[in-house]
Amino acid sequence: MRQFELTNEYLEWISEKIEQRDATAVRESLDGVNPADISALLGELDTEDSKYVVDLLDREVGAEIIRDLEEDTQADFLKAFTAEETASYIDIIDSDDAADILNTLPIKDREEVIANLENDEKANNILDLLRYEEDCAGGLMAKELIKCNINWTVVQCIEEIRRQAENVEKVYSVYVVDDEDHLKGRVSLKRIILSDDKTKIRDIYTEDLIAVETYMHEETVATIMRKYDLEAVPVINVQGKLVGRITIDDVIDVITELAEQERQLMSGISEDVEEDDSVWVLTRARLPWLLIGVVGGLVGAQIMGVFEESIAAIPAMAFFVPLITATGGNVGIQSSSIVLQSLANKSAFESGFFGRFAKVLAVALINGLALAFFVWLLNVVLGEETHISFVVSTALFSVVLLASFTGTITPLLLDRFGVNPALASGPFITTANDILGLGIYFIVAHLLI
Amino acid sequence: MRQFELTNEYLEWISEKIEQRDATAVRESLDGVNPADISALLGELDTEDSKYVVDLLDREVGAEIIRDLEEDTQADFLKAFTAEETASYIDIIDSDDAADILNTLPIKDREEVIANLENDEKANNILDLLRYEEDCAGGLMAKELIKCNINWTVVQCIEEIRRQAENVEKVYSVYVVDDEDHLKGRVSLKRIILSDDKTKIRDIYTEDLIAVETYMHEETVATIMRKYDLEAVPVINVQGKLVGRITIDDVIDVITELAEQERQLMSGISEDVEEDDSVWVLTRARLPWLLIGVVGGLVGAQIMGVFEESIAAIPAMAFFVPLITATGGNVGIQSSSIVLQSLANKSAFESGFFGRFAKVLAVALINGLALAFFVWLLNVVLGEETHISFVVSTALFSVVLLASFTGTITPLLLDRFGVNPALASGPFITTANDILGLGIYFIVAHLLI
Repeated sequence: MRQFELTNEYLEWISEKIEQRDATAVRESLDGVNPADISALLGELDTEDSKYVVDLLDREVGAEIIRDLEEDTQADFLKAFTAEETASYIDIIDSDDAADILNTLPIKDREEVIANLENDEKANNILDLLRYEEDCAGGLMAKELIKCNINWTVVQCIEEIRRQAENVEKVYSVYVVDDEDHLKGRVSLKRIILSDDKTKIRDIYTEDLIAVETYMHEETVATIMRKYDLEAVPVINVQGKLVGRITIDDVIDVITELAEQERQLMSGISEDVEEDDSVWVLTRARLPWLLIGVVGGLVGAQIMGVFEESIAAIPAMAFFVPLITATGGNVGIQSSSIVLQSLANKSAFESGFFGRFAKVLAVALINGLALAFFVWLLNVVLGEETHISFVVSTALFSVVLLASFTGTITPLLLDRFGVNPALASGPFITTANDILGLGIYFIVAHLLI
Repeated sequence: MRQFELTNEYLEWISEKIEQRDATAVRESLDGVNPADISALLGELDTEDSKYVVDLLDREVGAEIIRDLEEDTQADFLKAFTAEETASYIDIIDSDDAADILNTLPIKDREEVIANLENDEKANNILDLLRYEEDCAGGLMAKELIKCNINWTVVQCIEEIRRQAENVEKVYSVYVVDDEDHLKGRVSLKRIILSDDKTKIRDIYTEDLIAVETYMHEETVATIMRKYDLEAVPVINVQGKLVGRITIDDVIDVITELAEQERQLMSGISEDVEEDDSVWVLTRARLPWLLIGVVGGLVGAQIMGVFEESIAAIPAMAFFVPLITATGGNVGIQSSSIVLQSLANKSAFESGFFGRFAKVLAVALINGLALAFFVWLLNVVLGEETHISFVVSTALFSVVLLASFTGTITPLLLDRFGVNPALASGPFITTANDILGLGIYFIVAHLLI
């Protein structure tokens, strides 16, 4: 339970020791520290110094550190290692993480590392996993798992656990298979401990087991594991043979990644970027949505151009353009966000189309009336001309109604056509509603003045 | 491995059977079906029919279904049960979930249910847990866990597991305590199975253990469990005594809840709402941010009012207002979103203030120049007057620079002052940038025309 805190003082001290290549001091000060904490320290060092530190540590600790690095850092870091060195770490990393690491290496390096693996079973497992797409169950699973034959006794099973346990970091359940390796069920360690040695697995295993198939999308796997509260799920191939196991930590990564992707879509960022990416990558991720917004703005300018004479005659007309467009955008985003949430947590049956829209309409009516009244009141207080106040409030009310409708329908349509509906809560819906709002405003003005 | 799909045909059939109160047909058709799937079915029935179904099922299955209901549905559903009936379910639900359920009940009902519990230990555990805030480690933890004394042998430990295992659904590790119940470490089931019966726990346990304290915030707990890849974490009180255990499924709920909260903040929704909440709740959650946006728009109108004469003279000036405000908003949201991501994944040390802003500036310069040039080009093609094109592009460039700056600094400031920085990626930053953009546009226009 050693607590470790990465203070500035400690960083200065250890940096000095590393610079002096004081192996004893560095090794002693990091002894027993959790690999995740050492990783944070390495984040502050350059590649050469990091490699020096990792070389000093136990191979197991080093392997864990390398495994947990972010993808970009990992690829850079491994360039400092020879194929033999990399292979010695890969040899003790679980096959799923090993395959992920090898996926980041150039093909030539990858082959060299695999050729250098001492553990032939690991090499075969990795080659197996590299065949799968990264975002399906096959790409998430590890080959390491503990299985036993349905015809064995508890003591044979424990024998097998003893044999396999060295490779399997966390044992949740022992999977039960028949002679052809078809998955039949599972038996928990708890059950094994509590059973008599001579008991047949056949008599204590449970068939009550949820499995996923190799081709399933990672999002589906995450949903299933959350729904059924599973900490591990076996993976079977199309013949029902047990081929791997997915653990909950991989799925947490999937869940947080999906949330992050969604946030970026909502913010109008088109690639998975982070603050420490290069200026070029950051610009490339941001410019496309900005351009779409700009094009929307220019369309807006064309619409206003049609009403040039009215604006010249009553410039106050133009004053309320930002109010109208901003409200349209805000209402649209809110509406699409609520629909998105329903889409994410959808139950087996969708609530009726009609009921949904009746409610959207009701909320929009109340919001629209409240905002229109509020603006009308403020305009009266501020001494705005009566007919302009009337036009603004009428247009505002119409914009709230229409933006609620488009905000609700857009994610539903995108989802129906297989596009990620989160797209509808970003600049896309704002831009659309800006143009819509402008159109409504000037049409209302045209009709009422 | 029974697959269950909730088809419309099945729903129709079972609804009919339920209506006819055909107990045999209902019970048989749901036998062996996973509780999570039965929950989805109940979502389609009214409270009375749901209760009829739950009453037909095994108590364990019913308990699991009640546990997994959404909070609102749960409270409504339990109204159909007497205190005795509710207590009979609470008796077999883990203490953490039991406390959560009791928290949704009116105090009087809660007391009655607790008085009706048959399991006194469970009652005490629940009373213990009800004392903690829901969003701290104490409120997340369950009292059910398996612990053994450091001085025992493996066979004594297995004896104890046998005794305690009935109450503990999932065993990950056995926690090791001393005579005063102070947490000393853990020993895995794997290790126990592989050890000789006579071995002392003292000789096989590991001190290498991460624990959290009761008062820690749920977000901190989630971060720790993710960082160290833990499937369960023991909870200790200030004296270091073992008081409970948090499992990964509770933390997944925390992670998804936080992501949902953040999305709502970004969309300008001020409460945790869902599509099936009432019209009133939905309106109340949405109106505040809409009003802020409207006030921003009225401020914008006042700013434009200052330039009334210029707009009357050159109405084309007003045409580009939506372009400027939309771009300001988009750039601001993008910038704050990137900072938010860094704040969420922050490493122990923050990257330098200067380096961060140099990069923000570089990205803003490139984006600003690209957009300004693009708009200028289109304006030339569309035959806009030269000096207006020039003003628009200059203002657009300035807005991109300034919005990048405010978008970056706002979440950092909010975070510094302890406010949720995600607030900065919603209507707040859009509204601020709208006003900012308008100001810049007309000042530039004033200077250049």
